Amino acid sequence: MKLVVNCNLHFHFTEETALILMLRPFRGIQQWINREAFTINPAMLMLESTDSFGNSYQRVLAPIGDFFIHTSAEVIVTDNIDITPGAYFVEIQHLPNEILPYLLPSRYCESDRFGDLAREIIVDALPGYDQVRKITDWVQDAIQYIPGSSEFPLSAVEVHHRGNGVCRDLAQLCIALCRSISIPARLVVGYLYNLQPMDLHAWFEAYVGNRWYTFDPTQSVLSGGRVIIAFGRDAADVSIFHQFGSGCVLNNMDVQVDLLDN
Amino acid sequence: MKLVVNCNLHFHFTEETALILMLRPFRGIQQWINREAFTINPAMLMLESTDSFGNSYQRVLAPIGDFFIHTSAEVIVTDNIDITPGAYFVEIQHLPNEILPYLLPSRYCESDRFGDLAREIIVDALPGYDQVRKITDWVQDAIQYIPGSSEFPLSAVEVHHRGNGVCRDLAQLCIALCRSISIPARLVVGYLYNLQPMDLHAWFEAYVGNRWYTFDPTQSVLSGGRVIIAFGRDAADVSIFHQFGSGCVLNNMDVQVDLLDN
Amino acid sequence: MKLVVNCNLHFHFTEETALILMLRPFRGIQQWINREAFTINPAMLMLESTDSFGNSYQRVLAPIGDFFIHTSAEVIVTDNIDITPGAYFVEIQHLPNEILPYLLPSRYCESDRFGDLAREIIVDALPGYDQVRKITDWVQDAIQYIPGSSEFPLSAVEVHHRGNGVCRDLAQLCIALCRSISIPARLVVGYLYNLQPMDLHAWFEAYVGNRWYTFDPTQSVLSGGRVIIAFGRDAADVSIFHQFGSGCVLNNMDVQVDLLDN
Amino acid sequence: MKLVVNCNLHFHFTEETALILMLRPFRGIQQWINREAFTINPAMLMLESTDSFGNSYQRVLAPIGDFFIHTSAEVIVTDNIDITPGAYFVEIQHLPNEILPYLLPSRYCESDRFGDLAREIIVDALPGYDQVRKITDWVQDAIQYIPGSSEFPLSAVEVHHRGNGVCRDLAQLCIALCRSISIPARLVVGYLYNLQPMDLHAWFEAYVGNRWYTFDPTQSVLSGGRVIIAFGRDAADVSIFHQFGSGCVLNNMDVQVDLLDN
Repeated sequence: MKLVVNCNLHFHFTEETALILMLRPFRGIQQWINREAFTINPAMLMLESTDSFGNSYQRVLAPIGDFFIHTSAEVIVTDNIDITPGAYFVEIQHLPNEILPYLLPSRYCESDRFGDLAREIIVDALPGYDQVRKITDWVQDAIQYIPGSSEFPLSAVEVHHRGNGVCRDLAQLCIALCRSISIPARLVVGYLYNLQPMDLHAWFEAYVGNRWYTFDPTQSVLSGGRVIIAFGRDAADVSIFHQFGSGCVLNNMDVQVDLLDN
Repeated sequence: MKLVVNCNLHFHFTEETALILMLRPFRGIQQWINREAFTINPAMLMLESTDSFGNSYQRVLAPIGDFFIHTSAEVIVTDNIDITPGAYFVEIQHLPNEILPYLLPSRYCESDRFGDLAREIIVDALPGYDQVRKITDWVQDAIQYIPGSSEFPLSAVEVHHRGNGVCRDLAQLCIALCRSISIPARLVVGYLYNLQPMDLHAWFEAYVGNRWYTFDPTQSVLSGGRVIIAFGRDAADVSIFHQFGSGCVLNNMDVQVDLLDN
Repeated sequence: MKLVVNCNLHFHFTEETALILMLRPFRGIQQWINREAFTINPAMLMLESTDSFGNSYQRVLAPIGDFFIHTSAEVIVTDNIDITPGAYFVEIQHLPNEILPYLLPSRYCESDRFGDLAREIIVDALPGYDQVRKITDWVQDAIQYIPGSSEFPLSAVEVHHRGNGVCRDLAQLCIALCRSISIPARLVVGYLYNLQPMDLHAWFEAYVGNRWYTFDPTQSVLSGGRVIIAFGRDAADVSIFHQFGSGCVLNNMDVQVDLLDN
Repeated sequence: MKLVVNCNLHFHFTEETALILMLRPFRGIQQWINREAFTINPAMLMLESTDSFGNSYQRVLAPIGDFFIHTSAEVIVTDNIDITPGAYFVEIQHLPNEILPYLLPSRYCESDRFGDLAREIIVDALPGYDQVRKITDWVQDAIQYIPGSSEFPLSAVEVHHRGNGVCRDLAQLCIALCRSISIPARLVVGYLYNLQPMDLHAWFEAYVGNRWYTFDPTQSVLSGGRVIIAFGRDAADVSIFHQFGSGCVLNNMDVQVDLLDN
């Protein structure tokens, strides 16, 4: 499946503001980026680096006034998502080193507070994939998915208490529950073809059966057509944009995902 | 200053339990480890790795029954801690890449919720070292230091609400406040010579004037004699021991710090 | 300076062949990539990773038959190269950790064999930038630059003996000489605007005065308009393409660099 | 098997000399370090870091005069080395990213020059472990092992031409031959119990059957009792000590390996 994705941002800054951006598609095994564009206006050199999760990010000191970011990419992705009931739980002492950070509590995934709830949800599910499936189904039932409902990131504890949230909130609650039963889980931010309403999207992956599997508590069918931007423990690691200071207004954000070729 | 440190742990496990340990002194620039010992009983091979912060950690699957850990080290440390009023604030766009993770909110340091309080505390302090000094003093006044008062890690928001805490709690509140005004800050876990009562200790470092500086909200005088075990964003990264499952009892923990030579 | 670069490769494989490619412009501080395309024909998913130098590389198992690679990029680069006579030699104990690998001998830069020659060349030059300048001038005089003259990578010892070479050969001899007097040096592969004849190019950087400086022993004037693809210790690390096995013929390689905007 | 290893070095410096040391036992999966000591005289703070291979190294600026290094460790190692005829060749496109650097030519292992010889040696051996075994046997026959015979590192090409060498030379020739047929291989430096004559030792590992296997072209029987100090592509990466400048004399080097407990 060949997709063309676009994300355009229009900021207005009332003071010089440091920005950290994370908008490029992820370069790795699951997708191939044929073409990519990333421009800002006013044009300036941005400082680009890679974080410890393999995500590209850019730093820029945005001047006072209007500031436009245009990104687009043509990406080949898989049509189907692997679903493997029975994929086994990996014992902690056998996890690869680089997976361990995804086992620990993080800013928005307080897994140290969810052990009891998780054990209730999974009851007699087979350790591994089936437990993650149970958790995802439970969150889908228990937490109402309301796109656009939260202005700033809520933590899993807060989302659980509130009973509703955006895609990121549901994913982070799933992650906290998975980690609380020692299943590594990470947040994925990206694009989903045919998402309604269209926007950037967040879902999660869990590490069972010696690999990462995709789960999405906001979708009744786990469809393909996913362009990954970034991976992280939670939204503290993978923010599309992170501004410092209070002189920033996001006037407009426009996201498009088109099918080029199947 | 040459110190000999000892930390011995006695666990009892009622079920086979995966443990992640972080007990070796940190190997780096500020201290030199002349001698070191690390043994467990029953003897088993442990799997050792280094995390993305440079900390050594070990994984072991502890069998049912008593489990003893003995660690000791002879370490050369500096007598005095650098104090540099006026050390300047580093603009975000000039921070080294590896410092950026210490600017973001983390599990126990919800810096995204402390901007208003931090701005109140620092009022007209010079940007940089002096702001961190103000924050540390404020926490020392506002939060009562009660060794042994918290059984499990509290977050900065919880500690602020509760008004008291252990060394780690005070340090994490300082860290959250620093990050909320864009000063990178990290938790340090280690030993402090002459700490009363003797125990493992936690303090923090802030990045100003292009280097890390040491601060300790539990001590009225910033003394040397510090043996560093690990650095991290907060206690989620640097736990002396992290057990998975509920079959773990820590029967005893014994910490000693002796002066060998000055 | 805004440049558009193109590099197209046409291979023919008589057996299934593993390829490692390194063709994307480098993402970092010195240049900004507005647009980029990278496609292969027949279309296949490539496995992409980043090496320890920060270079992107791709792995693909090319099938028998014709194989086309098309890459292009629109890149903003600086017009001028910094030239700083007097930039000081950095003592080894003060070099950042990540610079140390560039001090050691490597496959094509046997710096352990060039100490005497280097000391002759630099005579009374000021330690640092001026020594690198002397070395570059000496290589430019002593080694004839013959584009297209070497089919496979020669080592610095071989190039010195032979007295002529391609851009990579001259750069690697400079690197070996620099390292032999404890100046870190690295190979750069990329595009140079107005290079005669047009081709991919190689030059080098030396670490003096606490930063990397650009040098190019094949050019009498050190001009800007350089698009960097990759950094490494030598050509063993930064090969545009590296095929395994003997069933590979490169039928054609076409490189273009156009000025879009100044 | 519990071993106690000691390595003591006595240098004399006629000028202030930068040293890079690599003398600590490696911390990882195959061995556990119960106790360790590392002191220098005159006592100075050393700067310690970890390289991209996971090896600890220290930098120090040694003053004029005598300089003593004392290291010792008590290490638990395995008695037996895994031997697995039939372990399969791993196709390049399936190699983990971190293994790839061990596939490329390096300073002392010019694998780009050994393809023909390697193909002659392995003839009809099963791809993988059995090929490495053939290469090791061939080197053991063809190259005479003469402890203490080479003062400075020779490359595989030089060793092949000369027909004899120290342990490092034989290992590096094996590595070059393995890489030339696309089998990743790396140099290991460490201690070997019962080595005759006692000294530091070097052997190599090859990556087949999805893991590293140990080989030693200097020993007719592949015995255990190996304490690993460092891994690298070749001796350019893993030098026990690397001095810069010419004001260094190694007066004495004393190595001991004792069996504490079996």
